[in-house]
Order: sequence, then C-alpha cells, then structure tokens
Amino acid sequence: MILSNALLNGQTVDITINNGLIESVTPHSPCAADIDAHGLAVFPGLCNMHSHAPMVLFRGLGDDQPLDRWLNDYIWPAEQGLTDERIHEGTLQACREMLASGTTAFNDMYFHLPAMARAVEETGIRAMLGLNVFGDGDELADVENGKWCMESTGQIRYSIAPHSIYTVSKKGLLRSAEACQRLGLPMHIHMNETRKEVDDCLREHGCRPWEYLDRLGILDMLGSNIIAAHCLHLSEHEINLIGEHGITCVHCPNSNLKLGSGYRFPLLELLEAGAKVALGTDGAASSNNLDMVEAMKTAALLQKGWREDPTAVPAEQILRIATLGHTVAPGQPACLFLAPVRSVGDLVYATHGDQVAMTLVGGKVVYRNH
Amino acid sequence: MILSNALLNGQTVDITINNGLIESVTPHSPCAADIDAHGLAVFPGLCNMHSHAPMVLFRGLGDDQPLDRWLNDYIWPAEQGLTDERIHEGTLQACREMLASGTTAFNDMYFHLPAMARAVEETGIRAMLGLNVFGDGDELADVENGKWCMESTGQIRYSIAPHSIYTVSKKGLLRSAEACQRLGLPMHIHMNETRKEVDDCLREHGCRPWEYLDRLGILDMLGSNIIAAHCLHLSEHEINLIGEHGITCVHCPNSNLKLGSGYRFPLLELLEAGAKVALGTDGAASSNNLDMVEAMKTAALLQKGWREDPTAVPAEQILRIATLGHTVAPGQPACLFLAPVRSVGDLVYATHGDQVAMTLVGGKVVYRNH
Repeated sequence: MILSNALLNGQTVDITINNGLIESVTPHSPCAADIDAHGLAVFPGLCNMHSHAPMVLFRGLGDDQPLDRWLNDYIWPAEQGLTDERIHEGTLQACREMLASGTTAFNDMYFHLPAMARAVEETGIRAMLGLNVFGDGDELADVENGKWCMESTGQIRYSIAPHSIYTVSKKGLLRSAEACQRLGLPMHIHMNETRKEVDDCLREHGCRPWEYLDRLGILDMLGSNIIAAHCLHLSEHEINLIGEHGITCVHCPNSNLKLGSGYRFPLLELLEAGAKVALGTDGAASSNNLDMVEAMKTAALLQKGWREDPTAVPAEQILRIATLGHTVAPGQPACLFLAPVRSVGDLVYATHGDQVAMTLVGGKVVYRNH
Repeated sequence: MILSNALLNGQTVDITINNGLIESVTPHSPCAADIDAHGLAVFPGLCNMHSHAPMVLFRGLGDDQPLDRWLNDYIWPAEQGLTDERIHEGTLQACREMLASGTTAFNDMYFHLPAMARAVEETGIRAMLGLNVFGDGDELADVENGKWCMESTGQIRYSIAPHSIYTVSKKGLLRSAEACQRLGLPMHIHMNETRKEVDDCLREHGCRPWEYLDRLGILDMLGSNIIAAHCLHLSEHEINLIGEHGITCVHCPNSNLKLGSGYRFPLLELLEAGAKVALGTDGAASSNNLDMVEAMKTAALLQKGWREDPTAVPAEQILRIATLGHTVAPGQPACLFLAPVRSVGDLVYATHGDQVAMTLVGGKVVYRNH
C-alpha cells in the first residue's frame, strides 16, 4: 500500500507499507498511490499509556466535586451498574474516540476484559488490557489456577493491574507481582497520584509508596515491566528507585489538574534518573476526553509553566514521549495518523485531536474524517 | 429571527431575536424557526479579552525558544516587515478563527488599526482595537492634535494601549492615561507578566508595577477603565490596589505557560478583592491558537491543579468569566454560539473550539460549520 504526498518533517514523502510495517519512505514523486495525503502531515500513532476506556460512559459525572465525593457519590455507585454490554458499548465509543484523534494503541486498566477485547477487535485499535486487582487479589484466582484464557494477539495484549497501594493489600500486591512474573505480563498500577496517598503510606508503612513496593521486593521482581500512572508526588529517592529499575511513568496532566492532584510531574528528573516517561489521558470521567493531542499540549505547557522555562520539553520531545519513540521510518509499525498541520509545533500547540484526518493501524485505515 | 430547539441549561428552548438583542427565551414548541438547532447547546458568545490578532501570521515562529531570543530574533524582526496589507490579511484570518471557535468579541492591541478595522468589519465580529504606544508615546500625536479619526461604532470600539511599564516611559504612560481620560477610552496594558518585569521595576522604581502606576496617579485617573493582561506575579498589596479600583485583569493561561511566565494567576484572590477577571488567548505567536474554549479548560484546570482543589473554578464560573457575565436571556445581545455538547461541563472540559457549529453576532449568523 502506498501513502503518497504526505508532509514529514518539512519534506513531502511517499510511504510504502507492507505487512503492517513501513517498508520505505522516499521523496514524493508522482506514483500510483492508494492514499493521496496532499496537505496533510504524517505522524507516528499516539500511544495513550493510561486509560480506563469504558469510563467514557461517565464523562462529566461529578465534574468539579471534591475527590472523595466524586468517587463515593458518583463514580463507584455508577460502576456498580456496569454490565458486559455497557462495558462493550463504552469501550467501543472510547476506541472510536481515540482513533479519531490519532491514538493507535492504548494501555488500559478496568473490569470485564472479554467485553473490552471484543470492542477493541471491532475497531482495529491496538490495546493492552489490564486485569484490575483490589484487596487481597481474588481477581487473580483464574490466573493462578491456570484458567486465565485471555491469549495475547498481535492486536491485544494483557497486563495485571493492581489498582494502587492503598486499595490493594500487601497480599494482593504480591499475588499480582507473582502472576506478572509467571506469565511474563507487565504490571500496571496507579502510584503517587495524590499527596494524601503519600502521607497515608508514610503513616501506615513508615516509608513512601515506591519505597514500600521496593520493600515488598516487587521492583526487583518486575523491574522495567512496571508501568505506573501519575507519579506526581515523588521524592528524590523514589525518582532514583524508579530510574534504577527502568520503570515507565505515565503522566496524565489533564486528569491530575482536574482532580486537583497536582501539576509538578518531574518529567526531566525521571528521564535523567533513567526512567521511561509516557503520556496518558486517564479515563474520560476525570480528563473528560481521550485526546492525546490535547494531552501533549497540556504536558509540554505545564513543564514550561512551573519551571518558568519556555525551552523545557519542546514539541518534538513531547511527541516522542506520546509515541513511545516510534518514528515514520522503514521497519516501524505502520501505525500512523495524518493531520492538516505544517509541523510538529503546529500539531502540539495549535491544534487538537478533532482535526485528525486519518488514522492507520498496522497499515489499515481505521479512521477517516468525513 | 427565531433560533429554535436549542439546549440551554438542560432545557430545550426557542430564542427570538430582534434588533440584535434576545427578545425572548421560551420552552421549545413546534414553530416556524429560521434556524433549527436540534442537537446543539447554545451559549453566550466568548469574549477574548487580550489578543494581538495579526500575530496569527507568526504562529509557530520561535516555538520553545527562550523569551529574549523569541522576541529579539523572531517576533520583533518579523513585525518590521508588516504592511497594511499583511495586517489586514492576518486580522481577517484571526477574526475567522475566533468566530469559528465561538468568540464573538475581542479586545486587541496592535498597530495599523485602520487595516485591522477593515478586517473586523468584513467578518462581522465585534472588537475593541487598542492603539499600541511605546517609549514616550509619539503614537499619540494625532490623538492629542484632535486628528484621531477612528470613530467608535456599534461593532468597533477603540482603546489606548501602552504596551507595558518596561517599554513605555513615565511620559508615555502619562500621555496615554491623559488621552484615555480626555476621549473616554479604556487603557489596555500588559502588567506583571514575568518575574523579571517585577524585579526590574523594584530595582528601577523601588516599588512593584501596580504601585508604580498608582504613584503616577494613573489608577485614580482611570480606575475601572483599565484592562490589564496577564497580572501573574502580584503581591497582596497589588491585588488590593487592583480590587479597590475595580480594574479588569485578563488571564491568558496558555500564553503564560508556553512562554514560561508562570501559572499562579490569583483568580479567586482578585475577585475577592473586588477586581474583575476576564479570559484571553494572547496572540497566536505565543498561545498558537485563538481558541477560547481551550483557554477556559486550561484556566479552570490550572486553578484546580495548583490549588490542589478540584472544586476551584467550576465550569459555570469559567464560562461566566469568558463571556463577561453575559447570559442567554431577554435583553442580552444576540451574540451566541452553538456546539454539539450536552452541558457547560462538556463544553469546558471535553471539547474544543473546533467543534463549534454556528456563531451569531448581534443576531446575524457569521459562522456556520460545513
């Protein structure tokens, strides 16, 4: 398949795609194109590395409420009523919204995974679905009994997702880590989201959240196979622990601001320490949309704002972070999106995901703007 | 003219418009409508209270550069080349972009006002155009000689716009204030945008920027006729000065973040002190777009984030601020926009100006999404 006449880093190129991969990227010449991308720039697909897809069903629920009331009076009661059918419907809506704004893969954490997987398959997006674990981890019974039947495919992979250190017991965390180790799955967890979480941990365990995970042996067990959302309130020692283990921290700027969790995500310090940094929207119940283009702008602007440094995290860097370093180059997956902009700066600072014109996953067109 | 079937605060209404004003708002009933707004919510038009419209021509110029290099190496040289024709072209583009994202009026500060006025008239948006003043204020010669021929109309008004206390001399500031007083025009000025501006003022004048204006007598001369952009780095004494004089402070969150100026706009403290607060995008050279819907989200989220309080500045409050308190009610100007959302929360948190379906100024449809 040939995607022709697309703008890439200021040059007009033709992209040949084969078997889901980019085969070649060459200067544009008149050719028999399958897609003429005249007037559109091409970018690697965005990876939304922390989401709760079905929560699009709760968009706007309890906006502007205090955190505890938002959870206790709005979100948790609403989640009680979720059926397989609603989960499928919500995931379908979320996948379509993500594809329509340039996201080609997402890393999720929720319930009813088979219903979610069905929606993912129907839309063509790629996903890693995390099995949510609470308390002592009884959700892991099937995994431990060898009855876990969710097979990874090229399109869908799985993770074990203990919700957080304050909702999962020591036993649940250890069962999760052991399941990850045995099955070779990543662990997806919320860490250091609020000041209260850190203070509670200090009071209960006499150490900070990442020190607690380390003490349980989980950092040494899983190392870089840990993906941690938020990581907002971190000490220098925690940043070093994260860095030494090559862990991935997922910044969710809009959610952190909206819930009043904070804004000083130590992006540069984490990279400096050896950590990986990724970007996410969180669920639409807290970020209100799943627009990774918007998330790039908020993330880059916040870094500049709180550091009072306009050179911090330039547009190219936040795009690299939001695409996990993927590029539009031979050998890379043909997960791409096209938008009517002239540059990476225009994409990040001037536009929104609403403007995405076309999205491809594994070389297939899965979204096309009418 | 009847705009029918629009969603307003959860109810479906018909809006009768006469002579540029809203005549009535009644529960929807089948009627001979001029516009059927089925599926769209109606909101008062957004007022972009600080912009430099022609700077859309410089969108993306010097992204991610240090502030002094951005100004000295990119923006100021580019401004040297501006002609009446380019200013007209840039303003036209900016007005269209604003109308297409729900803005029905803007408060600007730039050069070549007649060329700007021509573009404003051609698009149908409402504007206040500020005559930019630098140094000793020689731009005011015509105003002082009685040769100022820019007559205010229902659509266009004018202001005197001394750029800032660090680019305009004491003489220039006083000449500006006297011109404002004599012609009954507002003064539009940049204030307390950066920490450096405050530090320089303290060193040069032994007081902070607002104290300096007060010492010059300008606060008592003009009082609530002052519109000040940014107002980021304010002392408690300055907040009180602003409040006592009922001055309007215009928050430009995206520009402040992008240029690394800061993020702690004291919105609640200013309101508490008696100041008026408005919202702006600033020029597209620093904010990269003129999307007031995006500005509402950034502003509301920043307040929640740095205060670590999700209840700070709810969606309804930021909409009130962004519309200068206008409402969709009888007697109000028929400056309105329509968007495919269900609520104010959806508008502020979930969507962008790109989604605006229709904009009316003074009862006339001036933008319609294809």
